[in-house]
Amino acid sequence: MLTTLDCPDTTLPAQPAPAPVARPGGFTADDVLDAHRGGKLSIELRSPLVDKRDLSMMYTPGVAGVSSLIARDPAAAREYTWASRLVAVISDGTAVLGLGDIGPKASLPVMEGKSALMRSFAGLDSVPIVLSTTDPDEIVAAVKAIAPSFGAINLEDISAPRCFEVEERLVEALDIPVMHDDQHGTAVVVLAALMNAASVIQRVMVDLKVVIAGAGAAGIACAKILLAAGVRDLVMVDSKGILSVGRDGLHPVKQQMAAVTNPRGLAGDLAQAMDGADVFIGVSGGAVDPALVRTMGPQPIVFALANPNPEIHPEQALANGAAVVATGRSDFPNQINNVLAFPGIFLGALDGRATRITEGMKVAAAGAICAAVPGRADAGRIVPDPFTPGLARMVADAVMAAAAAENVVAG
Amino acid sequence: MLTTLDCPDTTLPAQPAPAPVARPGGFTADDVLDAHRGGKLSIELRSPLVDKRDLSMMYTPGVAGVSSLIARDPAAAREYTWASRLVAVISDGTAVLGLGDIGPKASLPVMEGKSALMRSFAGLDSVPIVLSTTDPDEIVAAVKAIAPSFGAINLEDISAPRCFEVEERLVEALDIPVMHDDQHGTAVVVLAALMNAASVIQRVMVDLKVVIAGAGAAGIACAKILLAAGVRDLVMVDSKGILSVGRDGLHPVKQQMAAVTNPRGLAGDLAQAMDGADVFIGVSGGAVDPALVRTMGPQPIVFALANPNPEIHPEQALANGAAVVATGRSDFPNQINNVLAFPGIFLGALDGRATRITEGMKVAAAGAICAAVPGRADAGRIVPDPFTPGLARMVADAVMAAAAAENVVAG
Repeated sequence: MLTTLDCPDTTLPAQPAPAPVARPGGFTADDVLDAHRGGKLSIELRSPLVDKRDLSMMYTPGVAGVSSLIARDPAAAREYTWASRLVAVISDGTAVLGLGDIGPKASLPVMEGKSALMRSFAGLDSVPIVLSTTDPDEIVAAVKAIAPSFGAINLEDISAPRCFEVEERLVEALDIPVMHDDQHGTAVVVLAALMNAASVIQRVMVDLKVVIAGAGAAGIACAKILLAAGVRDLVMVDSKGILSVGRDGLHPVKQQMAAVTNPRGLAGDLAQAMDGADVFIGVSGGAVDPALVRTMGPQPIVFALANPNPEIHPEQALANGAAVVATGRSDFPNQINNVLAFPGIFLGALDGRATRITEGMKVAAAGAICAAVPGRADAGRIVPDPFTPGLARMVADAVMAAAAAENVVAG
Repeated sequence: MLTTLDCPDTTLPAQPAPAPVARPGGFTADDVLDAHRGGKLSIELRSPLVDKRDLSMMYTPGVAGVSSLIARDPAAAREYTWASRLVAVISDGTAVLGLGDIGPKASLPVMEGKSALMRSFAGLDSVPIVLSTTDPDEIVAAVKAIAPSFGAINLEDISAPRCFEVEERLVEALDIPVMHDDQHGTAVVVLAALMNAASVIQRVMVDLKVVIAGAGAAGIACAKILLAAGVRDLVMVDSKGILSVGRDGLHPVKQQMAAVTNPRGLAGDLAQAMDGADVFIGVSGGAVDPALVRTMGPQPIVFALANPNPEIHPEQALANGAAVVATGRSDFPNQINNVLAFPGIFLGALDGRATRITEGMKVAAAGAICAAVPGRADAGRIVPDPFTPGLARMVADAVMAAAAAENVVAG
């Protein structure tokens, strides 16, 4: 396990420090609407269809030969259909960005955006599918029904706690990779960033005391991947306080987390948790008193990931002594952006013919992201630029290797 | 009704007669496989995503503005997502071409081909969705669940009689157009071809005695559209003989058809039905004795549409006195090919904001296809070339007009 704990040696040469991060401005609300007019995606042909010969090959009668081949040899579907490299981005629209439960139609621009990123960053085909139901049974049934059309399922923006059940049931039911990106994409990038942040303050990650504020989809996934990566002192806090085994009325998912976290048996609220901690990870959306940063250990690390309003404003975190600060926003340094993770994770899972996406594959992805920061990480650069050439490929290769090592590969 | 009965005046100038139809050959089985390698479709971006500004506009934070707009004003989804021009091509793989029940994975090349044709002939985005279930309840539930992702549903290659129930329930449940193309696409082209065939033999279509051999999905849809277009003497024959109200053991769907066909109260088998008939439409797949053509009325019309083996080989039909012959094959004249119909029908339904596809819209589509034969139809040319420039647009305009006239347009 220790080999994955700390950031692998960087594979990229040191480069000049990037220019100070500018607001990604230069666009207005109207510019955004213009960019979305007619939607962001189109379906195109991989080869032209312009005459009767093309028509006869790509449709009847020619296509019958391909279908017959697959009927005899199902493995041929991998080569002669697009499904093996096609990701479904599936949402019920219940937990969309910071907007909440806005329904399927209003969530569709986000899912189209996700598919656009799959294409741009990993070269993968991807189809947004938004659902008219929020019932877990119906979601699971619908996704199982359409699954033969796809090579992988990216669940997106499904609210907790339903998202845990939906993901778990689909992982069990299907022999293709299924991942709820709000949980795991964020978690992978948090781990990558924390590996580099630890090196910036010259600490070993496994020895850090970590507080996670928020026990929703992202918080629980962050906790799980940090535990898988070896972090030992992890305390989770929800709106009612610290998760502990003795706390009454915990949802079963939180009970499970309480059982594997909080080794010092803390009780109380966020202030108790942060007292002496090395790392604060905010995935709650609730404002946190910046003065609490002063109660943390030396050289505290603050990841305030709520969008658009970080739990602690990065300038206030720094003013209160934070050594390394990250947010979810593109207009501050160190954006924890899941676009660093999901394109490469799905690319690697598909190229590697993985049947599922394991915690080990996610940790491997985090290692590749961590290593993609050029030169030595510093406080202003603990994650790579999303446009780093070849980033998705590096992540994919790490994921493929982990899938092979864990033997979760289709026969 | 009479205005739609006979072929509208052609809107295209007479053109030189086409060269004799050549086998669409020039390709081998390997050529076909090469054309399918990696699948036939890809998802592309409608505008580039190359820098942080693009990323911030097309994904977070920009996309939140678009999602918020749609959450406030659902009608905005039409303008700012791709769904309003996106067709789902949905199959359970149970009645694929002449191959039968080959399952979802093996049917996918056909559905990709369908989506390719939507793009090539109508400029529509289209996603193939193949299903892991053949249960009507589960199919209906899955399609309802994913419907917000799409502007229209093209059901495809679902076996009878389930296809009738699935289509009917989805038409009722959804406020977007739903059409099982195996039924209605074929029927629309049959009607268009019959309009022209009637003019070739200088008959009025409504006075023709028509026999339909086959009471499956296509046969029943052909019967319905011919009745909607005014044909009065229509006899359906299945493997057990002529459909009549007195026949025992008929499936409810066939009972309904028996009640509205066979006005002369015929009984017996196909030979009795064809005796004196003007039109034979074969959609059964079973071989028919070519000598029966001799028992038909003067200048008989023979549409032998089974693929790859027509019920009556066209050369034998001609040798036995047929005046006009059509098949489902691309290597004989007069191919009854649903690619003439479905791209324009879906284009018109989507452009016209139709909430369903009515029988009147299908009849209108047939009129446009009929009229697209350049100059006067003759026995060797009762349907237009699928590559006729603007064909889908002409069909779409007719469909839009019919939708508006019937007031099946979204508010």
